[in-house]
Amino acid sequence: LATIHETAKWGAKGVWGTRETETGVCRLALSDLDKQVRDWFVKETKSLGCEVKIDQVGNIFAIFPGKNQGKPTGIGSHLDTQPNGGRYDGILGVLSGLEVLRTFKENNYVPNYPIALVNWTNEEGARFPKSMVASGVWAKQIPLQECLNLKSLDKVPVSFGAELKRIGYDGQTKASYLENPLAAHFEIHIEQGPILENEGKKIGVVTGVQAFEWNLVTVKGRSSHAGTTPMNTRSDAILTASRVIVMAVETALKHQGLATVGTLQLEPGSVNVIPNIVKFSLDVRHVEDEILATIMAEIKQKAEQIAQENVDSPHGKPLSIDFENITSSKAIKFNNTNIKTVKDAASQIFKQDEIREITSGAGHDSCFTSTRVPTSMIFIPSKNGISHSPEEYSSPEEVENGFQVLLRTIVLFDEM
Amino acid sequence: LATIHETAKWGAKGVWGTRETETGVCRLALSDLDKQVRDWFVKETKSLGCEVKIDQVGNIFAIFPGKNQGKPTGIGSHLDTQPNGGRYDGILGVLSGLEVLRTFKENNYVPNYPIALVNWTNEEGARFPKSMVASGVWAKQIPLQECLNLKSLDKVPVSFGAELKRIGYDGQTKASYLENPLAAHFEIHIEQGPILENEGKKIGVVTGVQAFEWNLVTVKGRSSHAGTTPMNTRSDAILTASRVIVMAVETALKHQGLATVGTLQLEPGSVNVIPNIVKFSLDVRHVEDEILATIMAEIKQKAEQIAQENVDSPHGKPLSIDFENITSSKAIKFNNTNIKTVKDAASQIFKQDEIREITSGAGHDSCFTSTRVPTSMIFIPSKNGISHSPEEYSSPEEVENGFQVLLRTIVLFDEM
Ligand SMILES: NC(=O)NCCC(=O)O
Ligand SMILES: NC(=O)NCCC(=O)O
Repeated sequence: LATIHETAKWGAKGVWGTRETETGVCRLALSDLDKQVRDWFVKETKSLGCEVKIDQVGNIFAIFPGKNQGKPTGIGSHLDTQPNGGRYDGILGVLSGLEVLRTFKENNYVPNYPIALVNWTNEEGARFPKSMVASGVWAKQIPLQECLNLKSLDKVPVSFGAELKRIGYDGQTKASYLENPLAAHFEIHIEQGPILENEGKKIGVVTGVQAFEWNLVTVKGRSSHAGTTPMNTRSDAILTASRVIVMAVETALKHQGLATVGTLQLEPGSVNVIPNIVKFSLDVRHVEDEILATIMAEIKQKAEQIAQENVDSPHGKPLSIDFENITSSKAIKFNNTNIKTVKDAASQIFKQDEIREITSGAGHDSCFTSTRVPTSMIFIPSKNGISHSPEEYSSPEEVENGFQVLLRTIVLFDEM
Repeated sequence: LATIHETAKWGAKGVWGTRETETGVCRLALSDLDKQVRDWFVKETKSLGCEVKIDQVGNIFAIFPGKNQGKPTGIGSHLDTQPNGGRYDGILGVLSGLEVLRTFKENNYVPNYPIALVNWTNEEGARFPKSMVASGVWAKQIPLQECLNLKSLDKVPVSFGAELKRIGYDGQTKASYLENPLAAHFEIHIEQGPILENEGKKIGVVTGVQAFEWNLVTVKGRSSHAGTTPMNTRSDAILTASRVIVMAVETALKHQGLATVGTLQLEPGSVNVIPNIVKFSLDVRHVEDEILATIMAEIKQKAEQIAQENVDSPHGKPLSIDFENITSSKAIKFNNTNIKTVKDAASQIFKQDEIREITSGAGHDSCFTSTRVPTSMIFIPSKNGISHSPEEYSSPEEVENGFQVLLRTIVLFDEM
């Protein structure tokens, strides 16, 4: 916990309370601040005796030696954050793993096989809008070049590859589960939702992750004068976008799914000019792949209708609407052995009714690792279910609980 | 017309056809390009024998001498444009006035009283979001300091006063109709709407301008994770903003008014984060002040309802919504003598059924001058009614028609 607060200096932002530690963190992937926390991480893990490997997409593997050679057991998460992120999302996972290594070292405990502590690049997809992209490349689910070519959402967009080089984390190790393998992947994370807190549970044993899909939606109309253009002759891109946003949320709700518009830009952007172009992101989720597909199909079909129905209506003339898929993550079921290892570890400390199986609402690097190696996750409660916000908070006790379960999970798995 | 196309080099942008002249213009107020066209305008009017005065808000008065001393008859409009503007809006008015002075000079015609050709600053309100602000200061309807303090919509906002100084147009002449008076103000402009074209009219005799009001609307919710936050616990600022935008348009439509959202920004702006703040501009218009007030009251009351009704609904928790008025322009009736002068001038050239009285949908500097001196306007048709767009177009014949009416109007008025 001390390390979480110490390292928050690289990006502390968003005061929400009166104490020094009551701010969030803004540490966008491959920014100067990300470089600083990476440099610290490399130094810190080397001082514990780790060998550090950096791969082609900047993933950092800190390998703590074991008694035997062999594939290392992975503990991974991410040190990048949202633009207005908190102190725990991702960071908790990497630093709890660091604490496992420190505990081994202090106690002269040598595991049977190496342990790899992994910091995955750009998990958030906040700066380069494809979340979990670097674990996706490692798992060979996303092509290396697609990742390196990603354009940032900065005011002046830059590429993932150029920024990686600029901060000196364009490593030589192949970004590949075949050439740089793991035996398993464990990840501890804050729940980021309200379930554990509402039910008074201490530990979530994560059995899988819901499916999600990100689209960039472009609405094209025609710009014209706000004061002289009769309503029924307009092709107003922001009006159509607004109607599509409301419809998308209603459609997701109807199917018990989630829909979120996180970014929106319009052109030309003058008070008295009807916008001709609106681009917005649409994040849609459901626990089942088939229902997610149904929701997306329904949204696209109704959006087309909304864009077209303007003919002869008081709303004006038709517009075009286009959906570009920018991220897809299928529903994930984690490995049964790994799930059982987490459950056994939790049962050493907590009563059965303090532990709960849970499906993750958010995507994690564990989604991609699970496609190649046995994977599972541990959740701790999030206060008020808030995440991707400076107010994100888990108590010192909850952070300690999670760490204890992770430590025992790694020892149990290593013994197996 | 040649001068319109020559001076378009200062900002030509937005190709819409194959000819060199088939682009729009982007020449934002007090930008480097605005300075260049101003420098040219000062040189050009001086070469015609004008005395040039620049006032405290950068309005340029080029005074062409008459036989007698006395208040000059004003011909005014603006050389600034929208970010994706056309070649005619404002520019036609200033350059038709210039052509009147050139015609006088070439024919050794000396008017009875001086003629002032005026370039008003920042008419568009595109860069500094208060349209017609500099004629408003001259008419003492807007305080000088409020104008100088206006912040630009640039990515890095700068003040009106600082930019005025930077381009060297912070003049010494008092910005005041009392200390720098006009006898009258005439303005020729493109209609910017479809009425003259649809009815096959050649000249619009503008009798007044509809009322309009600009608000900056701020919706505040709470940011949280797109994947883990249940729909009914959200305070989603972009969802609420979208519902308010649709409602505002419906409300304006119901009262035969107009509503336009021209700018919108959201925070924090990440695909998987529910936005906590959305700010958008809302431009609402109606020909009658009372009905505009009714529409605005209805929009505000329903917006409050939308922001509140989230309690216990599947849409989530309540949000706050705030309206800040940034521009108000009352319905304007122009001066009867001036209207009659324009009508008489037009009747010298066109048949009665080629001329039409018309109310302007857009605001113009003439709105503010009309509060202090006899004012009226001349309209020519706009192709497809399009304006505030690169495709804005009036034919060479229409430009010539307008000029001929302006020339005769000025001569008739000067003779009176
Ligand atoms: N855990 C997390 O916030 N990951 C980002 C990917 C997602 O949006 O679910
Ligand atoms: N003529 C013109 O476009 N003026 C800008 C003010 C307005 O929005 O009506």
